[in-house]
Amino acid sequence: MTTHTPLPIELGEEVAAALAAGDPIVALESNVITHGLPYPDNALTARKVEDAVRAGGAVPATIGIDAGRIIVGMDERDIDRFAATPGIPKVSSRDLPVILARGGTGATTVASSLVAAELAGITFFSSAGIGGVHRGAETTMDISSDLVQFTRSKVAVVCAGAKNILDLKLTLEFLETHCVPLITYRADDFPAFYCMSSGLRAPHRIDDEDVIARTVDFHWSLGGAGGVVIATPPREEDAIDRDEAEAAIEQALVTARRDGVTGNAITKYLMRAVDELTGGRTAEANMAVLISTAEAGGRLAAAYARHVRDLVPVP
Amino acid sequence: MTTHTPLPIELGEEVAAALAAGDPIVALESNVITHGLPYPDNALTARKVEDAVRAGGAVPATIGIDAGRIIVGMDERDIDRFAATPGIPKVSSRDLPVILARGGTGATTVASSLVAAELAGITFFSSAGIGGVHRGAETTMDISSDLVQFTRSKVAVVCAGAKNILDLKLTLEFLETHCVPLITYRADDFPAFYCMSSGLRAPHRIDDEDVIARTVDFHWSLGGAGGVVIATPPREEDAIDRDEAEAAIEQALVTARRDGVTGNAITKYLMRAVDELTGGRTAEANMAVLISTAEAGGRLAAAYARHVRDLVPVP
Amino acid sequence: MTTHTPLPIELGEEVAAALAAGDPIVALESNVITHGLPYPDNALTARKVEDAVRAGGAVPATIGIDAGRIIVGMDERDIDRFAATPGIPKVSSRDLPVILARGGTGATTVASSLVAAELAGITFFSSAGIGGVHRGAETTMDISSDLVQFTRSKVAVVCAGAKNILDLKLTLEFLETHCVPLITYRADDFPAFYCMSSGLRAPHRIDDEDVIARTVDFHWSLGGAGGVVIATPPREEDAIDRDEAEAAIEQALVTARRDGVTGNAITKYLMRAVDELTGGRTAEANMAVLISTAEAGGRLAAAYARHVRDLVPVP
Ligand SMILES: [Mn+2]
Ligand SMILES: [Mn+2]
Ligand SMILES: [Mn+2]
Repeated sequence: MTTHTPLPIELGEEVAAALAAGDPIVALESNVITHGLPYPDNALTARKVEDAVRAGGAVPATIGIDAGRIIVGMDERDIDRFAATPGIPKVSSRDLPVILARGGTGATTVASSLVAAELAGITFFSSAGIGGVHRGAETTMDISSDLVQFTRSKVAVVCAGAKNILDLKLTLEFLETHCVPLITYRADDFPAFYCMSSGLRAPHRIDDEDVIARTVDFHWSLGGAGGVVIATPPREEDAIDRDEAEAAIEQALVTARRDGVTGNAITKYLMRAVDELTGGRTAEANMAVLISTAEAGGRLAAAYARHVRDLVPVP
Repeated sequence: MTTHTPLPIELGEEVAAALAAGDPIVALESNVITHGLPYPDNALTARKVEDAVRAGGAVPATIGIDAGRIIVGMDERDIDRFAATPGIPKVSSRDLPVILARGGTGATTVASSLVAAELAGITFFSSAGIGGVHRGAETTMDISSDLVQFTRSKVAVVCAGAKNILDLKLTLEFLETHCVPLITYRADDFPAFYCMSSGLRAPHRIDDEDVIARTVDFHWSLGGAGGVVIATPPREEDAIDRDEAEAAIEQALVTARRDGVTGNAITKYLMRAVDELTGGRTAEANMAVLISTAEAGGRLAAAYARHVRDLVPVP
Repeated sequence: MTTHTPLPIELGEEVAAALAAGDPIVALESNVITHGLPYPDNALTARKVEDAVRAGGAVPATIGIDAGRIIVGMDERDIDRFAATPGIPKVSSRDLPVILARGGTGATTVASSLVAAELAGITFFSSAGIGGVHRGAETTMDISSDLVQFTRSKVAVVCAGAKNILDLKLTLEFLETHCVPLITYRADDFPAFYCMSSGLRAPHRIDDEDVIARTVDFHWSLGGAGGVVIATPPREEDAIDRDEAEAAIEQALVTARRDGVTGNAITKYLMRAVDELTGGRTAEANMAVLISTAEAGGRLAAAYARHVRDLVPVP
């Protein structure tokens, strides 16, 4: 295979400049804009997330697929258009070639954002809650492709753990089996999205950003497949109590079963149901953790950029 | 590792010429010849499958292991010998190095054919029914290595879905988790081998061969691991009714349990039992879907070859 | 990513000389020293294991992480220090970058030893019992990262099968699904650590070391991911009767459940409990199989080195 279609990647101006200068960048998904909150909350949150990346010390690069082109660094108008347009499909990594071949438009998930980030040369990505192993996956085998993408894309993933509607214990087992390095930043336990803790102890807590930067770099020097997952909890004042969240999830699972909701529809269904059950408090916590995670992502990307700059280039 | 044994690959004359000219080629497995039908039905079917690839517009390359050499493009005499010789072992991708080291002979599965096709530079492969997740795999963990090979070999796989004795829902989950692009060609649902539909909706239907060619090419441009699965149903006049097939499979599973058949023996056992239960109609449908899939494979390989020819070479 | 931290790998003198000369080397893990037997039995066994590698015809390279450096070929003083120091953490492949970034010390598992061996250019590794699929993994998803590392590191693994506290049937299924070549050397069945047989027939028995060397080489020539697993049983006079071992394991599993032992603590707990139940006979058999496997590893590494020397270099 010596020939292939040139990839239709377009970099935002600021992203292109940061890449050329070796400045830190944090990639962001657009699926959270189109499939998370209603308009205009989604557009406002996307803007706050970008501001948080900047506050952390990096340039945000929100990623989306627009008329057959991969946009890395959507501008404010792009984001607003995505936020206001209903029906933009969710595009995971395996859907990417199809959507490009069709000249289509779509919102990137964690997995597809990692593919685009790596192609653009961006080494950090941030998302509040990654996908994982679904509750009941022992029989349904329903496991998010995010986890497999972590073993393929050389991008560090900063998150507040996995969405708590998932089975977090099985999610950690999967990451361990597949040799994905897992660090917690400023926490002992693996966080649970908008909850401070999943109740599961994580293998390595590192609070020093420089040590995290060296860990990421060593992972790649060692020939490690894919990326490193860096989980950091929400701010205490934003968090939802774990028992309260768990009770709401249990109840939502009951109604999901009653309503026959399964497969790809389950994530959105559960998140909405839990939000109703908590009187909208989880949606607010969700917005808060998106922002605080993005800020941590910016800080860690900045530390990594400093680390790389200090290295003697290896030819 | 700077030294290694030169690989004993031998290209058939027509295949070598097609590779040199950039003409479309469709790789084919030989396990279907040795482990599918009885002689001489198997030899006749193999010839019809090759004819169907040509009718689709491509050169067939049936793959087998003969006395320690990988033959890519077996000639009519090779095929007839494989068809008539009992006891030729089935060689999956992980068996390949063993058989070569022993100078042995064997029939290639989907997985090992993909390895050989990629080494030879062939980008399309066709088979009626790929392997998948076995029924009961929640406890047996019996999952075909075909599915993992799809994440490793850069070859597009044209098929009529997975063998319907498998758990097709779990097979689709596995492909999704492992980020394997899945397209249906001329169908909305994932087909079920000699049945038109598995009852499971596939993520992307594409009927335009040029869009499929671009999808395959984009998958590789994006750095995607392995191949793309393109599923297309049998012709309506050849298909078996899904309820009828399912009833026969359920019954065959009962007798398999009674007879204590498990492991690698189960696929062949079930396919034979189902055939008896349907009065030989599934075996006939099996031959028909092998042929119609091969023709679709030829058509899609030809579209891909045209697409690659039109591209400006990227150095 | 054009820059990265130079990897802190230090080769033992003898290992460096052997690498330069193309002489055979067998990599060894250090976790068996720190987490296996009590001091000084562990130090004594480590020395006997190294002697066995030499008796087989190769240079031993015990691997450990010492103050932020990967030592490939620990000397006698290093090994004794590791053996005598309590609390040295177990470092799997995904922990490696963290421990290096922290300048820490740790004992390598099978998985992390494979990473280090490949980086150093060593193609053979020996361990008595690899990790695998845990009993109950149908619901716990507890599967050793060793198995996934086998699909990534281009190192041949000589072992006496997997630890028999695991589910060996599921372990073989996992290896098959993930296309990991599996050979038995001098046995028909997959061995079960210090038992001659697991009762499970292995796919390929090869007793000729030259054929094994060619198999390993062909696996890599074919573009095969990762390594080859070569399982060889303990010496008959060292082995424990399978029924006796199985009864002890069943009993240990009951007390483990009673004591609430789960997760990463289970392996060590079960191995100790089984040892007590057999009056120390399994610990002795464990030492014996470590030694006999290492000798087989030396012999096979030597055959492979001869094979590579005889090849005409491919540029
Ligand atoms: Mn899913
Ligand atoms: Mn199987
Ligand atoms: Mn485990």
